[in-house]
Amino acid sequence: MAEPSGQQLAAASRLYRELEVEGRRDAVAVEEPLEVRVDGEPLSVTMRTPGNDEELALGFLFGEGLISGPRRAGLSRDLAANAIEVEGPLLRDPGRRRFYTTSSCGVCGKGALEEVAVVSEPLPPGPRIERALLADLPQRLRQPAFERTGGVHATGLFDPAGRLLLAREDVGRHNAMDKVIGRALLDGLLPLHEHVLCVSGRLSFELVQKAAVAGCPILVGVGAPSTLAIELAADRGLTLAGFARRGRVNVYSGTERIR
Amino acid sequence: MAEPSGQQLAAASRLYRELEVEGRRDAVAVEEPLEVRVDGEPLSVTMRTPGNDEELALGFLFGEGLISGPRRAGLSRDLAANAIEVEGPLLRDPGRRRFYTTSSCGVCGKGALEEVAVVSEPLPPGPRIERALLADLPQRLRQPAFERTGGVHATGLFDPAGRLLLAREDVGRHNAMDKVIGRALLDGLLPLHEHVLCVSGRLSFELVQKAAVAGCPILVGVGAPSTLAIELAADRGLTLAGFARRGRVNVYSGTERIR
Repeated sequence: MAEPSGQQLAAASRLYRELEVEGRRDAVAVEEPLEVRVDGEPLSVTMRTPGNDEELALGFLFGEGLISGPRRAGLSRDLAANAIEVEGPLLRDPGRRRFYTTSSCGVCGKGALEEVAVVSEPLPPGPRIERALLADLPQRLRQPAFERTGGVHATGLFDPAGRLLLAREDVGRHNAMDKVIGRALLDGLLPLHEHVLCVSGRLSFELVQKAAVAGCPILVGVGAPSTLAIELAADRGLTLAGFARRGRVNVYSGTERIR
Repeated sequence: MAEPSGQQLAAASRLYRELEVEGRRDAVAVEEPLEVRVDGEPLSVTMRTPGNDEELALGFLFGEGLISGPRRAGLSRDLAANAIEVEGPLLRDPGRRRFYTTSSCGVCGKGALEEVAVVSEPLPPGPRIERALLADLPQRLRQPAFERTGGVHATGLFDPAGRLLLAREDVGRHNAMDKVIGRALLDGLLPLHEHVLCVSGRLSFELVQKAAVAGCPILVGVGAPSTLAIELAADRGLTLAGFARRGRVNVYSGTERIR
């Protein structure tokens, strides 16, 4: 997999539209609904930036524990670009994500984790990464659509030497990560045991969960983590780092992978 | 309704926790799941910052067109603080939000709007607001938990003179607006025909929809809008303004309300 160049730029051209705003041209991030269907049955609707929808659907299903490998997927013919058809079957009934109402605690994060977390395999002890390099990854995450619009989030997949392997932008930060993981799934890169994921924004529970389910041991973001993000990272042995800006970074869990 | 002071500060104390991060104390925004139940039936699970959960549930249900007035709501006794019980019945079957699969276009925003938008009443022609005041509203939006954590979004309800009536912070930006609208519903302020909503982040389709359903004619944000946010605002006659920073603001629709 090469540095994103032609392919990435071609995709970027669909990420925004030029609109007239108070008499001048302004680039605005595109947001449209996408329905994900499995074997023809509607599963979910997400608001996303069009493009790489196959990656989005597969990454989403993988992150929910509903598929474990690549599936045939394509935009629905009867719906232009607003529905994507994925070949089943799923590993389990999608239903609602399990949310046990008898064992919850409501105060302790552990109880909450047991309610909402998707099961994931243990993470490997490695790789290790230099603190200064980890802090620098957001600078290496190319964000052409953000530079034009200010309206999209980004996720990048890096190797431990800090080389950007893959990047995706989307109005939804979860979607940007789903697209990266969906691409990695299609390219046979999962589990991401020797990789680092970097996000342009805040670190929520959902993003930590997606990284852990994809087997990625290190997740860094420009923004702040939440308590539940830190608790899930600690529970899964994932290195979680935030506020990666201006050469500095805070490490909230898994410090043993930081050199 | 007074300026948020004691009550707001009391709520803020539940918005974050002090954690030890690499040997020092750090304030981290709290994120926990909340299950919304109607007449005992689970409806949805959202990741939110605890506190003001009654407002969150009612604001969410109102924004989805599922209730039109206040309802009795309270945290479930068997679940500490992780489930909230709301008294039914709902105005319609919640199901999935309607997403018509036969009329979509996939490229044209209008088609997408018809698929996913909740029906809302027409907005009033007024009020009008000075451009400089609109640009200044984010400065007037108190964000105590953000100042401590960097990890929460905020929504504020203002009158057209720029007075802050109500503010809420949450790890989810949709939740912050749901809490404000839920509070306004409980206080008998809906529809918000003489108000302005201000958000700390980007302007998505969902936020415009929530504002329109609440009857609020003006929505301003610190961040960028999406194409679908602008299209929905134009369709509903809502004044949508973004990039409100450093005394400047871009107005994307409804410029007739700007003086």
